[in-house]
Amino acid sequence: MTDKLIEVAALEAALQAFADARGWNRYHSPKNLAMALSAEVGELVELFQWLTEEQSRGVGRAPDTARAVRDELADVLLYLVRLASVLGVDLDEAVQTKLAANALKYPAGDTPQRA
Amino acid sequence: MTDKLIEVAALEAALQAFADARGWNRYHSPKNLAMALSAEVGELVELFQWLTEEQSRGVGRAPDTARAVRDELADVLLYLVRLASVLGVDLDEAVQTKLAANALKYPAGDTPQRA
Amino acid sequence: MTDKLIEVAALEAALQAFADARGWNRYHSPKNLAMALSAEVGELVELFQWLTEEQSRGVGRAPDTARAVRDELADVLLYLVRLASVLGVDLDEAVQTKLAANALKYPAGDTPQRA
Amino acid sequence: MTDKLIEVAALEAALQAFADARGWNRYHSPKNLAMALSAEVGELVELFQWLTEEQSRGVGRAPDTARAVRDELADVLLYLVRLASVLGVDLDEAVQTKLAANALKYPAGDTPQRA
Repeated sequence: MTDKLIEVAALEAALQAFADARGWNRYHSPKNLAMALSAEVGELVELFQWLTEEQSRGVGRAPDTARAVRDELADVLLYLVRLASVLGVDLDEAVQTKLAANALKYPAGDTPQRA
Repeated sequence: MTDKLIEVAALEAALQAFADARGWNRYHSPKNLAMALSAEVGELVELFQWLTEEQSRGVGRAPDTARAVRDELADVLLYLVRLASVLGVDLDEAVQTKLAANALKYPAGDTPQRA
Repeated sequence: MTDKLIEVAALEAALQAFADARGWNRYHSPKNLAMALSAEVGELVELFQWLTEEQSRGVGRAPDTARAVRDELADVLLYLVRLASVLGVDLDEAVQTKLAANALKYPAGDTPQRA
Repeated sequence: MTDKLIEVAALEAALQAFADARGWNRYHSPKNLAMALSAEVGELVELFQWLTEEQSRGVGRAPDTARAVRDELADVLLYLVRLASVLGVDLDEAVQTKLAANALKYPAGDTPQRA
């Protein structure tokens, strides 16, 4: 039995194999991967920048953005998992720790969002 | 048997429960979550900005950054999974599709990184 | 007579003197400054992320955000001007060229924003 | 005599006229402009992400990046000035205030960069 919140081992392995097959490990310093992650988030943000909040709710279904938003979410996730991997960070541990801290910091009850 | 590359259902559910318990769903439009994701990536980038690539390789182990980098990676992941969730996007499908496209676009063999 | 759209020479000089006095030139590679710029934009975005568009219009005047938003805008501008400076880029030329290109790309007339 | 560090009034006016001529003011909430700024910074970061620091120093002169980096710097500057404009923020005041604060916070003398 596991109580993992997220499981990324197969994806980590796929990304390592991808980099190995292309000689890309030399580019994959944490510094460079943090930049690549940031650039991909920029492309994701671009999809939403001129939309109202209400319009933004339909982006996952609208025919002209449904694939684009999936692709950009994937790109962000790929670089995030790759970055954690080269840093030796266990994302499930990181997330579990952060959620526990957030639960203390933001007690349940109707409140304005802060974090 | 599954051939999923990533499994986030438990984390999605935890984030939904967290938002429900605080009345935060009204803040969680895709537009707002894309902004929050982008702000968290900024905090992650900040950890690396003045380091050399070589120094950046030690950030996951150095005592004064090991926890900070885990926290920032977690924050990015939390908003990414929450954003996919409110958009109705299956991250595993998105990642599988993108990796297949990348494999076609960047044939194996030693090459300069482009993507 | 000048028809410059922007004049940043005094600020460039102030930033160079600031870096000189602290031995910071060695940190100011374009790569590092692009990261610092990106991190500062993250702090700026954070001020707006949970606000409605309407609420965001008051951020420059609201007592609890008026100074913060000025500080973040300044930080972004400082790194942008410093980055252009170390790259040897004339920002006025860059802006004039881009505006001329934009005027061709987006003819006048009521249109949805794209760029 | 002026002791302004930066002068952006002509650019502000040009951007206002550009938006007026296209009916784009309705898109230019501070929230939206902060997102557009962030997306443009992503495109700028992308130019540097796989380069070493040393390679990044040549980006302003290399034939295949010289125009691209000018265009991206311009895009960032255009959105930054437009954002300050709709917020009613005087960028010169903001920068002067921030530089004075930085001079107190980081005394002169050879030190590791922090800010």
